[in-house]
Amino acid sequence: MSRYALGLDYGTNSCRSLLVDLDTGEELGSTVFPYPSGTLGILTDPADPNVARQNPRDYLDGLEAIVRGALAEAREKRPGFSPAEVIGIGVDTTGSTPIPVNAEGTPLGLTPEFRENLNAQVWLWKDHTGHEEAARITETAERLRPQYLAKCGGIYSSEWWWSKIWRCLRVDPAVFAAAHSWVEHCDWIPAVLTGTTNPAAMARGVCSAGHKAMYAEEWGGLPDAEFLAALDPALADLRHRLYTKAVPASEKAGCLTAEWAEKLGLAEGTAVAVGAFDAHMGAVGAGVKKGTLVKILGTSTCDITVWPNDESLADVPGLCGVVNGSVLDGFYGIEAGQSAVGDIFLWFVNQLVPDRYGSTADEKFAAMEAELSGQKPGESGLLALDWNNGNRTILVDARLSGLLIGQTLHTQAHEIYRALIEATAFGALTIVKRMEEYGVAINEIVNTGGLAVKNATLMQIYADILGRPLKVAASEQTCALGAALFGAASSGGISISDAQAAVCRMRDRVYEPIPENQAVYAELYTLYRTLHDAFGTAGWSGRLDSVMKDLIAIRQRQRKV
Amino acid sequence: MSRYALGLDYGTNSCRSLLVDLDTGEELGSTVFPYPSGTLGILTDPADPNVARQNPRDYLDGLEAIVRGALAEAREKRPGFSPAEVIGIGVDTTGSTPIPVNAEGTPLGLTPEFRENLNAQVWLWKDHTGHEEAARITETAERLRPQYLAKCGGIYSSEWWWSKIWRCLRVDPAVFAAAHSWVEHCDWIPAVLTGTTNPAAMARGVCSAGHKAMYAEEWGGLPDAEFLAALDPALADLRHRLYTKAVPASEKAGCLTAEWAEKLGLAEGTAVAVGAFDAHMGAVGAGVKKGTLVKILGTSTCDITVWPNDESLADVPGLCGVVNGSVLDGFYGIEAGQSAVGDIFLWFVNQLVPDRYGSTADEKFAAMEAELSGQKPGESGLLALDWNNGNRTILVDARLSGLLIGQTLHTQAHEIYRALIEATAFGALTIVKRMEEYGVAINEIVNTGGLAVKNATLMQIYADILGRPLKVAASEQTCALGAALFGAASSGGISISDAQAAVCRMRDRVYEPIPENQAVYAELYTLYRTLHDAFGTAGWSGRLDSVMKDLIAIRQRQRKV
Repeated sequence: MSRYALGLDYGTNSCRSLLVDLDTGEELGSTVFPYPSGTLGILTDPADPNVARQNPRDYLDGLEAIVRGALAEAREKRPGFSPAEVIGIGVDTTGSTPIPVNAEGTPLGLTPEFRENLNAQVWLWKDHTGHEEAARITETAERLRPQYLAKCGGIYSSEWWWSKIWRCLRVDPAVFAAAHSWVEHCDWIPAVLTGTTNPAAMARGVCSAGHKAMYAEEWGGLPDAEFLAALDPALADLRHRLYTKAVPASEKAGCLTAEWAEKLGLAEGTAVAVGAFDAHMGAVGAGVKKGTLVKILGTSTCDITVWPNDESLADVPGLCGVVNGSVLDGFYGIEAGQSAVGDIFLWFVNQLVPDRYGSTADEKFAAMEAELSGQKPGESGLLALDWNNGNRTILVDARLSGLLIGQTLHTQAHEIYRALIEATAFGALTIVKRMEEYGVAINEIVNTGGLAVKNATLMQIYADILGRPLKVAASEQTCALGAALFGAASSGGISISDAQAAVCRMRDRVYEPIPENQAVYAELYTLYRTLHDAFGTAGWSGRLDSVMKDLIAIRQRQRKV
Repeated sequence: MSRYALGLDYGTNSCRSLLVDLDTGEELGSTVFPYPSGTLGILTDPADPNVARQNPRDYLDGLEAIVRGALAEAREKRPGFSPAEVIGIGVDTTGSTPIPVNAEGTPLGLTPEFRENLNAQVWLWKDHTGHEEAARITETAERLRPQYLAKCGGIYSSEWWWSKIWRCLRVDPAVFAAAHSWVEHCDWIPAVLTGTTNPAAMARGVCSAGHKAMYAEEWGGLPDAEFLAALDPALADLRHRLYTKAVPASEKAGCLTAEWAEKLGLAEGTAVAVGAFDAHMGAVGAGVKKGTLVKILGTSTCDITVWPNDESLADVPGLCGVVNGSVLDGFYGIEAGQSAVGDIFLWFVNQLVPDRYGSTADEKFAAMEAELSGQKPGESGLLALDWNNGNRTILVDARLSGLLIGQTLHTQAHEIYRALIEATAFGALTIVKRMEEYGVAINEIVNTGGLAVKNATLMQIYADILGRPLKVAASEQTCALGAALFGAASSGGISISDAQAAVCRMRDRVYEPIPENQAVYAELYTLYRTLHDAFGTAGWSGRLDSVMKDLIAIRQRQRKV
């Protein structure tokens, strides 16, 4: 008899399922559901580019579609397959993506009263409206609870739980008042599946709690009421309607209800794991372990590694964050990331690439990558900063923006595309350097996510800039795969490490750095770092008058090579 | 009996004629000839974006086409018109645009031996290959002849005469050796028309000589042989094959030969004026006088004013340059300019504006301008530097490049277009401020050139940023009109000031600054100036960490207005 697990991965623009054979690693079914609401699933506000919300209805519609789709595929692929052999379901989502819910656990965005109100919808991870609140949380924590900040890189982000909830309180008190509680997207889906309607009873994952809500056992869970009251008494009041205990994703949130078993075509009582963020489960799906950095390269990037929790680990400034048990039991989960990577390329291709490159975004990317194959590093004379959506690591500052330098009257779109790829790679290098400076040795880099699989141009540039061989996880769905492994583990039938050993594989192609490219990129990184520090840090002082000239000198040299 | 004059205006991508009635100002005929060679008339080198050359054949082919075209139009418009009533021909061209010629005055690019050699063609004003040479000329003059630099803003440019000729000597000694002499494009056309084949006998205009070749009466003409020998002995040797005397454009270069009279359909013996640069003649065509700044807004920009040569005038750092008689007799001609304005917009529309804005550049511009009509200053959060082709005034540095800051994941093409317009306007403001700081009061700004006539969006932004009413000259061809006025004056039949009074008119529409826009642009200019000084000057020190945040703060405020 086979054993299967089902992973449900809720991304930024779509959700997807993965049904995996826990003994062979074979992926038997996977279905994608693009969120129908808004633009690519995101509800925006033309008056404020910081707004990014989602419709909770999309999550429920997607849930049925992706589970039924995966089961149908599995039945086709393996005629003897029975849904009763699915031993567990795991769920991962983006985050921090908090949802205001009423006392019955229903998202306010699903209620008639608030259906049309943007503030009552899901506050997507990349919503940056709470930057003022984030700054005030940082400032207040510096004064009153510096220990809270030490674990999340020293700066509280506008992308996180309390910034968003407080923002809601300040801009839309009616929504805040109607919200009995708030729940992370990754905790809400397991609650739905297990029929948990009381928000206080919903299983809350330590991954989201620890990384985004300043939850830690060592100070008794969520930030204390006195601290929250210093922000706003209404937040202190909310605290006791949230939760007191957060648990690892290898624990069971509950069992699948009869109603949802029926809707999805699964067996009632199937174990449902506690939810976690996509990147953390993706890292597990890609085989994360001590010394291995897993980079999940998608619309944004998450960089995840782990460190044994019985070895010493310094607080790492700008890294957000370090949470015990958030990835694997017995290890600190260490998370870093870039606020936009694929999103920058999508922005560029949609807004600024003329149709002579192709009529669709995919055609344009392919044509630009073909043009780049004959180009050398530095040949365009361009340099960019990767901050179109702010900087998560190591500056932790959403109020930064993009920058492009070196344009001439001959600069072409594909050259800018390359500069944007390079900028994201320089951002990635900055993260690795910071980890190593604080003692987190990185011996191996495993990449996963859409860009790692589809964009060989990008992967080679990353290898050249990171200066290390880059591996790519075999599965195209490491997040969903990781979620499935947690689903399996939550059933009690298998451990995470045994499941990893059975299903996590690497692709044959490893991207090796090209020494002559590395040398040029080392020069360009110095210039990147100058701009990074000049525009991104308060402490910088220096001169910039050679930056443009240095880029021109590199360009001229490289064109002659 | 009527009196007419013919102006011939050689621009960057095309040449055009204008036949004007000197008593009524009526424009009777005008024909454009786009240069057929290269890309939009420019010969480029894929390996070096600094290369910009032209084919001298295009000038001759254009000469016949535009003169015959204008005469044909005039005959149609005014049946009694006779070419014998054309009392003079004036010529203006871009510059510094030197041409290597053999001992018979023939451009090397027209000889079979050198026809295919890029270095033997015309070195167009915007060729920047001589930046190393320019730097060494500046350095040598600082040491040996500081007075040479004082008149041209303190820095010798790669766009100018000696940088280009020396560059040719260094990269292509065979071409340099074959060049008996060199002649500015604006001096070569009158030489052709008057049959002057001996380079030493060709009339050389003081406009090009003074502004670009460091010619001045006070040090005996061209730079002395000792100075040139310090650069390269071959340049000192070339000096005595160039010229000893340069004269104003109101003087006569000679008379139209029988051969060219026949080719063009004009009367033999018609006066041909000494040539000058387009901007200088354009300023005269737009009515330049003391206190009036004429801005010629085209692919690049020239800003011209005059100052009585019997009043004191300080050397103005970064202004290139100040030359006695280069615009009007009895006045210092004061020239500033931006290396690229329309060229930046053309680059952007051709390389980076998707086809949903339109299928042609004109459609795209129109659609973007329509989008911008509802936008407020600062609303995009973007800021750019206008240096895609270097900076002519006030930094005099070709080795600068473009910069764009403030991009988000929502930035759209038309917003960047606006930022580029604003950047060029901030550059224009920097020039006006510098003139006024050194005592050259500006009471009136008259605009001319394609952008002034066609782009109301740009003109309003310029008015808001410059903070003054902006007038637009009535003629669409002020350069050709100015050339015609010099043609007339060279015949001895009329003075420039009388001719200006008869033909120079303004359009009814004056662009008035909008106070609330001025206030926002004053803030943005502070940020522009910070970036300008940080990236463009060696002396800057300061902090940049608030630039992105300030732009975001302005954006948020403006979106709420």
